[in-house]
Amino acid sequence: MSRPEPTTRQDFTLFRPLQTRWSDNDMYGHMNNVTHYLLFDTAINGLLIEIGLLDPLFGNPIGLVVETSCRYHGQVGFPDAVTAGIGIERLGSSSVAYKIALFRNDDTTAFADGRFVHVYVDRESRKPVALPAEWREKLESLN
Amino acid sequence: MSRPEPTTRQDFTLFRPLQTRWSDNDMYGHMNNVTHYLLFDTAINGLLIEIGLLDPLFGNPIGLVVETSCRYHGQVGFPDAVTAGIGIERLGSSSVAYKIALFRNDDTTAFADGRFVHVYVDRESRKPVALPAEWREKLESLN
Amino acid sequence: MSRPEPTTRQDFTLFRPLQTRWSDNDMYGHMNNVTHYLLFDTAINGLLIEIGLLDPLFGNPIGLVVETSCRYHGQVGFPDAVTAGIGIERLGSSSVAYKIALFRNDDTTAFADGRFVHVYVDRESRKPVALPAEWREKLESLN
Amino acid sequence: MSRPEPTTRQDFTLFRPLQTRWSDNDMYGHMNNVTHYLLFDTAINGLLIEIGLLDPLFGNPIGLVVETSCRYHGQVGFPDAVTAGIGIERLGSSSVAYKIALFRNDDTTAFADGRFVHVYVDRESRKPVALPAEWREKLESLN
Repeated sequence: MSRPEPTTRQDFTLFRPLQTRWSDNDMYGHMNNVTHYLLFDTAINGLLIEIGLLDPLFGNPIGLVVETSCRYHGQVGFPDAVTAGIGIERLGSSSVAYKIALFRNDDTTAFADGRFVHVYVDRESRKPVALPAEWREKLESLN
Repeated sequence: MSRPEPTTRQDFTLFRPLQTRWSDNDMYGHMNNVTHYLLFDTAINGLLIEIGLLDPLFGNPIGLVVETSCRYHGQVGFPDAVTAGIGIERLGSSSVAYKIALFRNDDTTAFADGRFVHVYVDRESRKPVALPAEWREKLESLN
Repeated sequence: MSRPEPTTRQDFTLFRPLQTRWSDNDMYGHMNNVTHYLLFDTAINGLLIEIGLLDPLFGNPIGLVVETSCRYHGQVGFPDAVTAGIGIERLGSSSVAYKIALFRNDDTTAFADGRFVHVYVDRESRKPVALPAEWREKLESLN
Repeated sequence: MSRPEPTTRQDFTLFRPLQTRWSDNDMYGHMNNVTHYLLFDTAINGLLIEIGLLDPLFGNPIGLVVETSCRYHGQVGFPDAVTAGIGIERLGSSSVAYKIALFRNDDTTAFADGRFVHVYVDRESRKPVALPAEWREKLESLN
């Protein structure tokens, strides 16, 4: 299988610091493959809350996750520090695809590269809705 | 985006029952997107332990997860019961790609379809090694 | 420190089967001390949902957890099966203290003994309220 | 039930910053009661690694958790920041009991007070061993 190269910090302009936890490591002493998704969720939702695009209890529309993926390039684990690089891969009419890379301590090359796709739906009907113009502007300004 | 159709129970011959947990649900009252990967890990590693291909503390070679992905089709949550359907998508010389689908209660259509790729490495050197012939046979017999 | 003896299955009349997950084990290859609380939550809330006393999204009153504890007697881990024994330790005017024991596979002696205290509050005001009489009856019938 | 008062920052001299994660919140939109134990583990083990008393893969003796507990005083949740205050409650011949408090953002009163007891055992025999003198000194200096 030919695999895409890991991304580097130069591929991103937006970064968020993340902590690891003791429970992130599995029986092999390294970060379990599921933990990466906990970090994706935290980085992206933390960003969206900060810029006013996510209000989990009352916001409308809400982003449902319809697709996620991760390629793992190297090992990492508690108590390493992690930095997430976040970018917009594609901004659809009612969907946003993020690319997100995870960097270990001061490493410049990612130990994991992920993809995370939100489809925006009405909180009640759960049917897809167009992204509000103001949201689209904020998201476009992230890259 | 055109998306592949959800799989159905007819696409699988091997199934494993899985429980949900209270903590699987997030603020929206449904299974968080990360939980699906906890279920993938549990279904596949549980299967491998049963057929003698995974001994986490002493086995050699060990399977490193190099790629995972999930497409989410519908909502589910604690206390629903989940059934995982597991199949081999591709058996490489030192890698195994699994397809895994999750079914809610008695539903015949999957609420999530995942992919999970192991590369087998030597426990000490962490370098890829060819799958032992006996392992290959056991894995081929799963489909 | 003198420690209470582990409970046995004879100390309980109500049991619930629980699954372990790959991620439950930590770097030492055994169930991490936090996992026990995930199992407590799942056993108790699963029971409450079944008897109609917990509707997470709409129910009122709701049970806030005000105290939990666990004593660990022995090791366990994925892929072991777990059985939870549940009893009511104390039924207050607006609170319920549960005792909960976890048993490994066919063991008759608990590998962990826990305590779990709910205080019932109004969903909106979050102030303690008396347990409805019907709820009290259902809870008393559990022992 | 009469309950001890929450601790305050003045009850501690040793603090560690902790992040919350999206998955920490449960269906009620607040930190699930289990998350507190994930934070205890991370704060205490992170401290022990830093002062050279915890080497998860090779260290000997290793600390087994024999008892944990938590009293919950108030609500908190992602994306709040958390600070843990850590102190030694009791230093036994082969055991260490920690007190640990969790503070939300700039609050001076704890939203949770926990207790966490390690018994040190030999990595192979898993039998209790006396704490090495050097370890004892380091632990005594924490308070």
